[in-house]
Parts: sequence; C-alpha cells; structure tokens
Amino acid sequence: MLSPSVDNLVAQLTRLPGIGTRTAQRLAFHLLSASKPDALALATAIEDVKERVRFCRECGNLTEEELCTICLDPRRDQSIVCVVEQPTDVISLERTHEFRGLYHILGGSLSPIDGVDPSDLRIDELVQRVARGSVTEVVLATNPNMTGEATAAYLADRLRGVVTVTRLASGLPVGSDLEYADEVTLGRALVGRRPL
Amino acid sequence: MLSPSVDNLVAQLTRLPGIGTRTAQRLAFHLLSASKPDALALATAIEDVKERVRFCRECGNLTEEELCTICLDPRRDQSIVCVVEQPTDVISLERTHEFRGLYHILGGSLSPIDGVDPSDLRIDELVQRVARGSVTEVVLATNPNMTGEATAAYLADRLRGVVTVTRLASGLPVGSDLEYADEVTLGRALVGRRPL
Repeated sequence: MLSPSVDNLVAQLTRLPGIGTRTAQRLAFHLLSASKPDALALATAIEDVKERVRFCRECGNLTEEELCTICLDPRRDQSIVCVVEQPTDVISLERTHEFRGLYHILGGSLSPIDGVDPSDLRIDELVQRVARGSVTEVVLATNPNMTGEATAAYLADRLRGVVTVTRLASGLPVGSDLEYADEVTLGRALVGRRPL
Repeated sequence: MLSPSVDNLVAQLTRLPGIGTRTAQRLAFHLLSASKPDALALATAIEDVKERVRFCRECGNLTEEELCTICLDPRRDQSIVCVVEQPTDVISLERTHEFRGLYHILGGSLSPIDGVDPSDLRIDELVQRVARGSVTEVVLATNPNMTGEATAAYLADRLRGVVTVTRLASGLPVGSDLEYADEVTLGRALVGRRPL
C-alpha cells in the first residue's frame, strides 16, 4: 500500500502469534520512525538468536554452549530432576526460587490427537539420564491439563521402581477465594489437604 | 535468564509499543522455534525498511523513490490536496475509496505543550505547494481532537484567500446509536445537519 518494503515488514510481523494487521502496522511505523541503530538492534537480535541458540545436550534447555547454565552450575542439586514441557516453564519455576535441582525439558506433552507420541518427546533421554544412577527424585512438572496429566502418568509408569517420582501439588492458587475456585481444583485441594 | 542472545531479543522486543515482558517472551520463543528462514525474513524486512524507505519530496509520505506512488499516479486529481498528520492516516483514507486527490503529510499536529510549533511540521512546504497554483482545494483531515483542531484552525488562517479550505465532517459514526453518542459529537452532528 505504501511501499513494498513496508508492506513486507507488516506481512512478516503479522506472522507472529497474537499480532494482527493493525498491530503489525503500528509496530512497522514504530520501527520506521525509530532511529536506525534502534531498529537494526532488533533485526540483529533475531539473527543472533537463530545463529547461537541450541539445545542443551543434557536437559534440552536453550543454551549457547554444549551444556546450559543450569546443568553447568555446581551448586545445583544433581540428585533431583524437574521434568517440564517447555523452556518457558523453566523460567517460571526459577522465578519461585524454590527449586535448586536440575531440569529436563520434554519439548511438549503427549497428545495422540495431535500425533505427539513418546518418541516425539525427550522421554528416552530422561530414562537414560535416570538410569545413570545419580538422580534419586524426578519431579513431574508438566501442565495440570489433559495432555500434561497424561504425560505425567506415562512418565510415572516408565520410572516407577527406578527412582522416586513426585508430582507438583494441585490446589487453590494462593490469594484466591474458595467462592471462585472451580470444583475440580477445590476437589484436588480437599484430597491433597495437609496436617497443620 | 536462559541465554544472553535470548535475553537480548526479549529486551529488544520489549522496546516495541504495547509489547510487555510476557508478550516479548512469547514472541521470542516463537522466533526460536520458527524455521531459520522464517525468522530471518523478519530481520531482513526490518533492515530493508530502514535501508530503503524515505519521505516523498512532494507530500512527505513514505516511499522508496524520490516521489511516492500516489504523487506519481497521473489518474489522481492534482487540484485537491488532503492534509493529514501521519502516513497511517493516508492508509485509512485510501481504504474509503472516496478520495482521488493528493495528500500532504504534516508529520504531527501543533502542540505547544509538547514543544511542537509550526516550524516542526511540513507547513511551509504545504503553503509553497499551494502557492505554485495548481491546487484549488485543501481538505484539512487532521484528527478531530484538541491538537488536530488547533492545527486545522492554524492552517485555515494561513491558507485563507489563497485556496478553498475544507474540513472533514464531524458527526455521528455510521451504525452508531444516538443514545451512546457523547454530547460534543451529537452537538456537532446537529450543527452540521444537511438537507435531504
């Protein structure tokens, strides 16, 4: 509409998740009016990421080296491994400052409907990692939804007898009201009640 | 948190308007998991835009040549010029298919509070363009808000006696309800009523 390269930028921005035509246009005009170094910094950041980032050989997390910073950190507890679906879940868990062990990133959850079966996830790598013997507990931290629960159940079966397997607690979110809790969550909170 | 280049990409994305940390993280992970050509297409689009796009010598619109596609189009009516604040306004007006004249982009609106005075906008260029004689009507299409109205009033003063000056109609949006119209808009609709 205005110029081929602006149209192309809008088209490329529209391919990002959650970015519609209007937002893409606003972002494109921001980049147009931004200083050249500022705009090019974003282009370079994208190129750098595609050039440098790869998966940690041990846990499957994102890294720029052979092993990620968490696997390389000698202060982390090597005997406990937390299994998550995505690298973003690692960020969420690290933000709690409650976990000092290592991670294992599956790369998704089991979902036969979407054609995701155990061979598509880093499950064999997890089993081999546990078999090497230094891990004593595996915390299953897949999402508390249908596919995440199915994945946790599958992993519990695979690892039973080899290592202690635990699952993140389900229950009421802190700061919430009983009145607004859905019945499944409230039921889980009741079943999982703890002595005080 | 995960790797320096991912952190840098998130930081660069956060500088875009309306993009917070969570959204930036989601976009960064999308770019990470996208194919390399797809992700690099966005980087290249940004670089192309900064390299190629400049302002039309005549109207101030975005272009990749000396003159923009609208100024170069011989089918456009050369005698009527529509004055807008931003290149995005040209897109909005073109979408109506109601205007076949040329444009003049001011690059903003008069706002003494923000330190924008007439010399910061392409107003002298407009006056010179009109003085060349082929323009018979100037349509003021600045925004119907405080700074846009002030800019329209200022331009009307500068151009009075030289050329016919008109202003976009204010009134009820098509498809709206009287019940929900604010009193200023409804007042304008009443003052600007037309015979049927």
